[in-house]
Amino acid sequence: MAQKPSIPKGTRDFSPLEMMRRQYIFDTIRKVFRTYGFAPLETPSMENLSTLLGKYGDEGDKLLFKILNSGDYAAKLSPEELTQASKICEKGLRYDLTVPFARYVVQHNNELTFPFKRYQIQPVWRADRPQKGRYREFYQCDVDVIGTHSLLCEVELVEIVERVFRALGIRVQLKMNNRKILFGIAEAIGHADKMMDITVAIDKLDKIGLDNVKAELMERGLDEEAIGKLQPILEMSGTNDEKLSLLSNLLAASETGMKGIEEMRTIFGYVSASGIELDVELDLSLARGLNYYTGAIFEVKALDFAIGSISGGGRYDDLTGIFGLKGLSGVGISFGADRIYDVMCGLDLFPEEVNFSTRVIFTNLGKKEEAAALPVLRQLRDKGVPAEIYPEAAKMKKQMEYANRRSIPFVVIIGSQELEAGVATIKDMRSGDQQQVELSKIADLLAEIK
Amino acid sequence: MAQKPSIPKGTRDFSPLEMMRRQYIFDTIRKVFRTYGFAPLETPSMENLSTLLGKYGDEGDKLLFKILNSGDYAAKLSPEELTQASKICEKGLRYDLTVPFARYVVQHNNELTFPFKRYQIQPVWRADRPQKGRYREFYQCDVDVIGTHSLLCEVELVEIVERVFRALGIRVQLKMNNRKILFGIAEAIGHADKMMDITVAIDKLDKIGLDNVKAELMERGLDEEAIGKLQPILEMSGTNDEKLSLLSNLLAASETGMKGIEEMRTIFGYVSASGIELDVELDLSLARGLNYYTGAIFEVKALDFAIGSISGGGRYDDLTGIFGLKGLSGVGISFGADRIYDVMCGLDLFPEEVNFSTRVIFTNLGKKEEAAALPVLRQLRDKGVPAEIYPEAAKMKKQMEYANRRSIPFVVIIGSQELEAGVATIKDMRSGDQQQVELSKIADLLAEIK
Repeated sequence: MAQKPSIPKGTRDFSPLEMMRRQYIFDTIRKVFRTYGFAPLETPSMENLSTLLGKYGDEGDKLLFKILNSGDYAAKLSPEELTQASKICEKGLRYDLTVPFARYVVQHNNELTFPFKRYQIQPVWRADRPQKGRYREFYQCDVDVIGTHSLLCEVELVEIVERVFRALGIRVQLKMNNRKILFGIAEAIGHADKMMDITVAIDKLDKIGLDNVKAELMERGLDEEAIGKLQPILEMSGTNDEKLSLLSNLLAASETGMKGIEEMRTIFGYVSASGIELDVELDLSLARGLNYYTGAIFEVKALDFAIGSISGGGRYDDLTGIFGLKGLSGVGISFGADRIYDVMCGLDLFPEEVNFSTRVIFTNLGKKEEAAALPVLRQLRDKGVPAEIYPEAAKMKKQMEYANRRSIPFVVIIGSQELEAGVATIKDMRSGDQQQVELSKIADLLAEIK
Repeated sequence: MAQKPSIPKGTRDFSPLEMMRRQYIFDTIRKVFRTYGFAPLETPSMENLSTLLGKYGDEGDKLLFKILNSGDYAAKLSPEELTQASKICEKGLRYDLTVPFARYVVQHNNELTFPFKRYQIQPVWRADRPQKGRYREFYQCDVDVIGTHSLLCEVELVEIVERVFRALGIRVQLKMNNRKILFGIAEAIGHADKMMDITVAIDKLDKIGLDNVKAELMERGLDEEAIGKLQPILEMSGTNDEKLSLLSNLLAASETGMKGIEEMRTIFGYVSASGIELDVELDLSLARGLNYYTGAIFEVKALDFAIGSISGGGRYDDLTGIFGLKGLSGVGISFGADRIYDVMCGLDLFPEEVNFSTRVIFTNLGKKEEAAALPVLRQLRDKGVPAEIYPEAAKMKKQMEYANRRSIPFVVIIGSQELEAGVATIKDMRSGDQQQVELSKIADLLAEIK
């Protein structure tokens, strides 16, 4: 036999069980997005490399998957040119959903109605070194509204976080901060010029700890005095209101900082007025590495499972500027499907019906028995109950094993005795319970039974 | 301003309206697949080129999108080697869902339970010359069962065709034929060796007409006598039973041909016994070009819209043989989402609710009015009604235009007068009708109203 085929490293096949669970997550998220009036959008898997290059930093450029030009890609090229990817590739696979979204908004600017609310659930590709939990192809679930500065949009995203994780059964904490506050802090410690360095360093606080963050801040040119002022801010405790009050003293001289504080007061005000049942915490050490954020930022942690953030996002004032369209402010959040999947598996949160594709299977013990089963099977399908018949006459043991391995909860057995009596035996594979039921009553019964 | 960004030729952005319509099609198809116990599967977008090459003929190999190796792809390669795609690319984008499915079954053979019933809805990529209706990225919706010869599986696919198109509201005809019958015909006209030539030529009957098919058959080495015998078979009329009776005389000497006739008799027998309401016609000129089919073949035509086949498939006895696993028979069918979309647009078949993402929008005429709207908005969302509020206070005209452009059917207006009276005005944007309703009764009313 030939060598077993395989798939590229860092990619995955999703088995039926994995897919049913993933679809449950995606469907839940999609349904919540729709409840808030967000409409679906899809962009092509391939973008022109000119769209992608330079948007993710030098490191990101290296991680783009490039697609070889079709036809005779080497024609008219010198040996030197053949060593340059830019000469033999014009297209690349999308690296995230944000840049294609910005590209879409600019390209279709004249057709769109703003504020434009869209969600997008599609795979992205990165030529990262594969390792546990990091893949070269993975789905992102993004939801964004662009074309308004209204802070009601931030509040909608908080509500979406609440509803998605409540529906999935995951207890979470939402951490928020504001880039304007971070800028105010940089100003207050005398390093307005080092805003990005401070952001990048404190974004690592969770991963590398305070001492290493301090060391990195030194390397990035902050002096001990500045770091000394920064530390108590990062470690500030109390309620969100208390923190904002303290901050408004510390940042009184920073116009931007005070604006950030005002934004957060407004957002938290809406959140408490709305009755949202979600633990929302102002975390001044939350920074998020992406440099396009300009206002509120978000990050969601699972409370009962140790894993990084399972959702994150923020406000950006100039995302479409990279494609020449200035002044469109937006805010969005992204749900990490792979991590949510891991949390749900780890905490055993998937409902039972997500674990099987067929609810009822009819045994097949011969042509006559099959003929009796088929009309009942059709009745069940008419009622939308996923049902099937074992496709050929086979030994009972083999058919029961098939039902077992596929986690089918109900087996309907029609043997020659049952056939004579016009009944069937329904077996609940979970409890082992059996009952005899008239053929004409099976479909109604199985459509109701849990 | 910079040049407007664009996307690679042959690819598409799907706008919210297009996406809502596409999702309606995919959800309908998916729901029917699930009713028959088919479980979802997804395979990676990229496969090793060794998996893809040689599976689609020389022409297909040329149409594969190849992915440049990451890192320094040119290192250690000679200028000559750099001109060979096989040296600088190890991976390619999948070309269809059939080969990855076969690869999956062989790779996971030991974990799977046979018969294995799976469906797969994912994009595929082909470096075809873009033209009207032909894209470089498009979705396929495949459903297959593998690991059984049972003809009940063919019947399930007929039922799936019936249910999918009934649910979508498209009137269709299902044409069927059988590769064994085609082989029998080749034998009967004295050209058993030319089975593939005959298949390829008559597959074009619809497109190029009988005279051109005859010319092509001559080119492919059939003599006039053989073609003279073939023509009346291709043009045979009557009911399916009548055709099969005639054929069983003509093909009496062909064991394979008679087996094909017997298979079709069994399938048609099941179909009439089951009460399937679908026009199923034995069409002896149906051939389908793909060379892996070995038994029954299917093709679906829309009755009220001129377009090629909108669905097709068949039985294959050795699909996994290309990866070294012999003897697994399967049968499947594929739904053409793009063509189904065109038919539904052409016949105006999409239900109204597929055309908007938000059902209810609240106007925003100031902070007090906004505060009165937010709790009602939350009640609507609790009921699962897609609803939103215009995110900032703006002129009434602008807000009504926004509702109009997004086809939102209901606008809830809360102005200062309404606020005093504790009511709101609900405007049906389709009829123009308005009514005043107490704030506390709005959510219930709008959850019910059509």
